[in-house]
Amino acid sequence: MNKKKGERSFVLPSQPRIVSSAAFVGRKEGEGPLGGSFDTVLKDDTLGLDSWEQAESRMLESAVRLSLAKLDKTPDDIDLFFGGDLLSQIISAGFAARELRAPFIGMYGACSTMAESLITAAMITDGGFSRVAVCGASSHFSSSEREFRYPLEMGTQSPPTAQRTVTGAGAVVVTAGDETVKKPVYSNIVMTGGTVGRVCDYGITDASNMGAAMAPAAASTICAHLEENGLVPEYYSRIITGDLGIFGSELLYELCRAKGWEIERVHDDCGVMIFSKEQKTVCGGSGCGCCASVLSAHILPELENGNYERVLFVATGALLSPLSSLQGESIPSIAHAAVLERRSV
Amino acid sequence: MNKKKGERSFVLPSQPRIVSSAAFVGRKEGEGPLGGSFDTVLKDDTLGLDSWEQAESRMLESAVRLSLAKLDKTPDDIDLFFGGDLLSQIISAGFAARELRAPFIGMYGACSTMAESLITAAMITDGGFSRVAVCGASSHFSSSEREFRYPLEMGTQSPPTAQRTVTGAGAVVVTAGDETVKKPVYSNIVMTGGTVGRVCDYGITDASNMGAAMAPAAASTICAHLEENGLVPEYYSRIITGDLGIFGSELLYELCRAKGWEIERVHDDCGVMIFSKEQKTVCGGSGCGCCASVLSAHILPELENGNYERVLFVATGALLSPLSSLQGESIPSIAHAAVLERRSV
Repeated sequence: MNKKKGERSFVLPSQPRIVSSAAFVGRKEGEGPLGGSFDTVLKDDTLGLDSWEQAESRMLESAVRLSLAKLDKTPDDIDLFFGGDLLSQIISAGFAARELRAPFIGMYGACSTMAESLITAAMITDGGFSRVAVCGASSHFSSSEREFRYPLEMGTQSPPTAQRTVTGAGAVVVTAGDETVKKPVYSNIVMTGGTVGRVCDYGITDASNMGAAMAPAAASTICAHLEENGLVPEYYSRIITGDLGIFGSELLYELCRAKGWEIERVHDDCGVMIFSKEQKTVCGGSGCGCCASVLSAHILPELENGNYERVLFVATGALLSPLSSLQGESIPSIAHAAVLERRSV
Repeated sequence: MNKKKGERSFVLPSQPRIVSSAAFVGRKEGEGPLGGSFDTVLKDDTLGLDSWEQAESRMLESAVRLSLAKLDKTPDDIDLFFGGDLLSQIISAGFAARELRAPFIGMYGACSTMAESLITAAMITDGGFSRVAVCGASSHFSSSEREFRYPLEMGTQSPPTAQRTVTGAGAVVVTAGDETVKKPVYSNIVMTGGTVGRVCDYGITDASNMGAAMAPAAASTICAHLEENGLVPEYYSRIITGDLGIFGSELLYELCRAKGWEIERVHDDCGVMIFSKEQKTVCGGSGCGCCASVLSAHILPELENGNYERVLFVATGALLSPLSSLQGESIPSIAHAAVLERRSV
């Protein structure tokens, strides 16, 4: 058993590898602090297609293809594609999977999808059911705004807790620990464990305050991870959350402090990292594509080049729908954590 | 490796067990041919709650609790809950997971969700990451109609290819092959393998003709399963699809015949089984809850009591959204297969 009874954390004895990744982002994301690191910055966020939804799907498909092309592989070479997104019935991932023609496990974890896919892929790879898998997630500012909030044409003003959904897609190639990969993009990165999320709900009902909705889930998963593994936050070079934003990160520190953990010094948030203050995104970025693209463009390269030794990658998702919000339901959230390490050679 | 390179089928060396299940259905399903087999037939399909969506979530939550209660277990005893449904952002499963407080892996495979969850849970269990897991899926006629088609108040007439979304939820408890379970509901049922689905699209655009949209995916997965494993259809007591309905089943036979397989004699479809012709559901039932509840109330008991030796359980999902349909997209589909067997003692 790779997990203790009653705990949410698990270890991955075979240490599945992360050998490649790719990230596509929109123009605004390309103008941010990490702009130079993404593989492709779109000039036109419709990609010349008829709708933003089609563009989002194409972006995800392209990120998957590119992550494989870097290894001289194609979608025909993969055992499984784990993917998801924010849209109803995960159409971005579903239509991408149609084009990729790969065996497909559709995931829904809202903005936690990238970590959910990574830990699911890692467990299945460790169990001997996949040699080469791809995990992918996407979001698109324009498709999300009309899905979850208001039509863009209304020009609605952002409240002080708002975050901007990232137009972006990230794809990560996970192989078995002993898989031989010619010319891997990353030679040194392994997955050694993770912590599965549990749904939390502190009663937030404001769909423009996702940071507050998601912070309790992040705190729950991070604290469970540290306690179950007997670790201190400084064990990690960085604990990197998905898209809590500025306000949600502050709440995370308070919630962790209440449980006896000071994580601020080692914490980063992809939503805070992807935009600068000058870009006026209020509290930062959000969306499945936020941490998926930052993972690919920043976190994995930093692990590969030795700037990070170990990262706890904690993607957080808000499990609401436009309908549940209209029906007055609160916004539950979930956070999944994946442990990414430089391999000890 | 539990799977050959380039193939979609896998084996489960540790043979995870199915030890319990539970099914909740609506009144109309309770009046159908399997009516006496479900654990609970709802008298009021709102369960006294404010919306059909809340009722669907409560039904799924209740099915999970009951499947565990039959083993004298509670949601606190489980390692993982795999769940999904048809609604945007899988709110039925998300809100159920909030109440259950169990570690949650959200899945989206439309009506294929039950098989998708089962095979994912089985692989993760086989890999040593879960001792006791629950897989659950739900659908609700009234929440689905307004999500995917028309408001019920319009009284729209059903076209000749229509199916009726089942109001129902099913939950299945999957344990490690060597887990000791006191008083299991099923003592003899194991999962020995499966086949992961690939997205197919034959260009169907009619959201009232799901059988036609899903038949190619079912044919693809069933034929791949037989070919990759060197089996004939008669190896199985029954090959049971999720919700192709009467029309979709006919198409399945034709598509399989074109690939050299005659499956009609051993084939059943949960959508056909759950309603009688007199109930006027046109082509039968559909929805995640259709095969989830039939699995629990009919297929598993038939395996346990020896009427079936081996079943290939093939749930099919149509990967559309209301938005993608309005945008003129066709309806891609996917089918996942799980091999359920009586344990050879």
